[in-house]
Amino acid sequence: MADWYTTFANSGFGTTITKQLGLPRPAVLRRYEPGQPLLPGPAVVGSAGDGRLRDTVTAVLRDAGVTVQSPVTADGGTDGAKPAAVILDATGVTGPGDLAGAHDFLAPAIKRLRASGRVLILAAPPTDADSPAQAAARQAVDGLVRSIAKELRGGSTANAVFVPEGAEDSLAGPLRFFLSGRSAYVDGQLLTVSPADVPADQDEERPLAGTVAVVTGAARGIGAEIARVMARDGAHVVAVDIPAAGDNLAQVANEIGGTALQLDITAAEAPQRLVEHLRERHSADGRQGVDVIVHNAGITRDKLLVNMDAARWNSVMAVNLQAQLDITQALLDSDTLQPGARVVCVSSQSGIAGNRGQTNYAASKAGVIGMVRAWAPLFAERGATINAVAPGFIITEMTATMPFGTREVGSRINSLQQGGLPVDVAETIAWLAQPGSAGVNGQTVRVCGQSMLGA
Amino acid sequence: MADWYTTFANSGFGTTITKQLGLPRPAVLRRYEPGQPLLPGPAVVGSAGDGRLRDTVTAVLRDAGVTVQSPVTADGGTDGAKPAAVILDATGVTGPGDLAGAHDFLAPAIKRLRASGRVLILAAPPTDADSPAQAAARQAVDGLVRSIAKELRGGSTANAVFVPEGAEDSLAGPLRFFLSGRSAYVDGQLLTVSPADVPADQDEERPLAGTVAVVTGAARGIGAEIARVMARDGAHVVAVDIPAAGDNLAQVANEIGGTALQLDITAAEAPQRLVEHLRERHSADGRQGVDVIVHNAGITRDKLLVNMDAARWNSVMAVNLQAQLDITQALLDSDTLQPGARVVCVSSQSGIAGNRGQTNYAASKAGVIGMVRAWAPLFAERGATINAVAPGFIITEMTATMPFGTREVGSRINSLQQGGLPVDVAETIAWLAQPGSAGVNGQTVRVCGQSMLGA
Repeated sequence: MADWYTTFANSGFGTTITKQLGLPRPAVLRRYEPGQPLLPGPAVVGSAGDGRLRDTVTAVLRDAGVTVQSPVTADGGTDGAKPAAVILDATGVTGPGDLAGAHDFLAPAIKRLRASGRVLILAAPPTDADSPAQAAARQAVDGLVRSIAKELRGGSTANAVFVPEGAEDSLAGPLRFFLSGRSAYVDGQLLTVSPADVPADQDEERPLAGTVAVVTGAARGIGAEIARVMARDGAHVVAVDIPAAGDNLAQVANEIGGTALQLDITAAEAPQRLVEHLRERHSADGRQGVDVIVHNAGITRDKLLVNMDAARWNSVMAVNLQAQLDITQALLDSDTLQPGARVVCVSSQSGIAGNRGQTNYAASKAGVIGMVRAWAPLFAERGATINAVAPGFIITEMTATMPFGTREVGSRINSLQQGGLPVDVAETIAWLAQPGSAGVNGQTVRVCGQSMLGA
Repeated sequence: MADWYTTFANSGFGTTITKQLGLPRPAVLRRYEPGQPLLPGPAVVGSAGDGRLRDTVTAVLRDAGVTVQSPVTADGGTDGAKPAAVILDATGVTGPGDLAGAHDFLAPAIKRLRASGRVLILAAPPTDADSPAQAAARQAVDGLVRSIAKELRGGSTANAVFVPEGAEDSLAGPLRFFLSGRSAYVDGQLLTVSPADVPADQDEERPLAGTVAVVTGAARGIGAEIARVMARDGAHVVAVDIPAAGDNLAQVANEIGGTALQLDITAAEAPQRLVEHLRERHSADGRQGVDVIVHNAGITRDKLLVNMDAARWNSVMAVNLQAQLDITQALLDSDTLQPGARVVCVSSQSGIAGNRGQTNYAASKAGVIGMVRAWAPLFAERGATINAVAPGFIITEMTATMPFGTREVGSRINSLQQGGLPVDVAETIAWLAQPGSAGVNGQTVRVCGQSMLGA
């Protein structure tokens, strides 16, 4: 469950070699397995200012069977086992001075954090602040959490969730995600939740039970892994890919007990064909339609812009962006999208940071980010959500063909010092598809190990 | 006017050496000199969709004596001299399909771009779009321009300006800045302008003539350079620094015919002392008060968070963030801030990307970004603005003390493959201080050569 270098560097022989040569020794990440406890140890919860989220946090932790420790004090007091998570409620900060409390709590607590630990800072959005001083203190959380993520070692991550007033119920799902092994490769990120009707309980072992989920580009790589993880979480998966990938597609669908649908998503009639397919098939409880759609299909046609012909530009736009727009619109216009539906679109780090040789790809993937942000209010009216994930360097068959140096540098320039796995992207998408993610809407979640490459 | 490596790599001997060793040969950037034409060659202007900014762009170019070329077509047609600037009006795009026009125009035009050229894409904000398809196409500009910036060589830059409906008058100032040598080290950035009463004309040689400008931390480094550039542009500069830096401060003030004010900006009485100083002194036309304030003073106290004491945390917060808040508030509360005032705050790339060993610094500099965004609406009501600049790797006395390897890597990991100079930060700040920058408010402008390190 790790790339070859990480496996090697953590073997007995590899440890010796990497130490002697001064090579990085990336940690084996704590990844999700069904039945696993939410955290492998206690959580310590503290606050800066007079926060409003402590009860929500404590309830989630208690429900999950996690022991809650009182804050460790700077004078060296400890309280039992080393924490697996450090959680700061910073919603009460009114100005920069209150952040002294953040420092006082975090510094000694993080010092005791165990490997594959989690640091999570909860704050109110800077854009909602009552004063410039409060906005400054809230925005400071951004620089703070990104710096902490860059300092942590041993497979630990740091992320932040911005929780507006009235969106307290939306926190539980993201909180569980960030603490769990599902978020293993999500690091240095800031998520903003919004008010929503969040179902009080979901089956944490099979959160997608009874749902029908469409996954495009499902014949191989990340798409196939998305299909597997969603099936594991209980979904009936409609695996979509082009006819040329038919054999692989059938294999994936058979493996997970799903349905294979051969479809060129850029064809003019593709949206209507998908709608008709979804109308005809019946899910377990007799519903027609779809609960989850994952727009994963994508292509690259790299070339410097000055040498790029129109065909390369247009084909990338058609597959990566226009097809997502057209299919989503067709589902909205038909009666095939269930209330509470989840649309998850695959963007890319290139859509955030840009990339040399990828003007077409980066433009299309940035477009996806603009699309989900713009559609979010309409989806919210339906009790549904639309979000994007932006993978960084993920180890796939495609990256295996890169020159060794490019691949090795690409996989190391992030805070976790390793490439991600397809399952890391799949877990994030499957989490966004959960009923409990109702308060996450219009967001783009990076799955990049806190890549150094950013906007 | 360039760092030692850039100077060396572009010398006859250095060119030979760097070629043989395969070392980067960063271009000598086109930097601003008074009296210089806006562009050293013609500009080619094109559009994707039916744009609304062509007239504004053409007027600015004609006023500045720039020849405007018709678009170069993909079939190889040329139109005189190679362009020094390629400008795309993409305000008319309604969906991803319209971006084919962006590709058709940009690819052949950029192929002919001369060294130290400028690519500028003008678009409407994705957040104002009429449809998800339009939002997607507008956001695509983000990925496109960042990718182009990463592809350009020879000291050329690519940036974008988002112009909402009704903010057309706000474009001229930013357009001039991005085309000029003032923006030499601003690359891969996206600026959003807002509607404002922009003075029809300003003295482009001495845009700050008749103004009083306070610059904190002015005794050395970037602060001293800011003071020099603002004085060159016509301002009477009140140079502020701590008493311990008094000799240097006096030297800077004397050099530029300004005033020296010794002040510890973190002292409780500092804001009031500054207000009183500004009330007492009279500018050329008998006004009391200040037109421009540049919050440049800042400190670092680096340490991993787990080893950071409260003193390091608190002192960085006090100087870098709380003092900016307190002094700005005192100026607002008093009668010392002129209508149309400009406040420019120095943030940092660390405040955007975070940095290992700089939790305190990054938090304070992120705070500055939140502060200017929050204060912008109030400033707009007064016809004033508040903005931030975020420098990347700038070559100063401080960076000279870094280990060789750290310094060399730090200065190369950006699209211009070199560190910036203090004057690059100063030119950007002086531009934000101009009357013509009235439509730039609440923004953070990075001066980082498109650093790879981002959020």
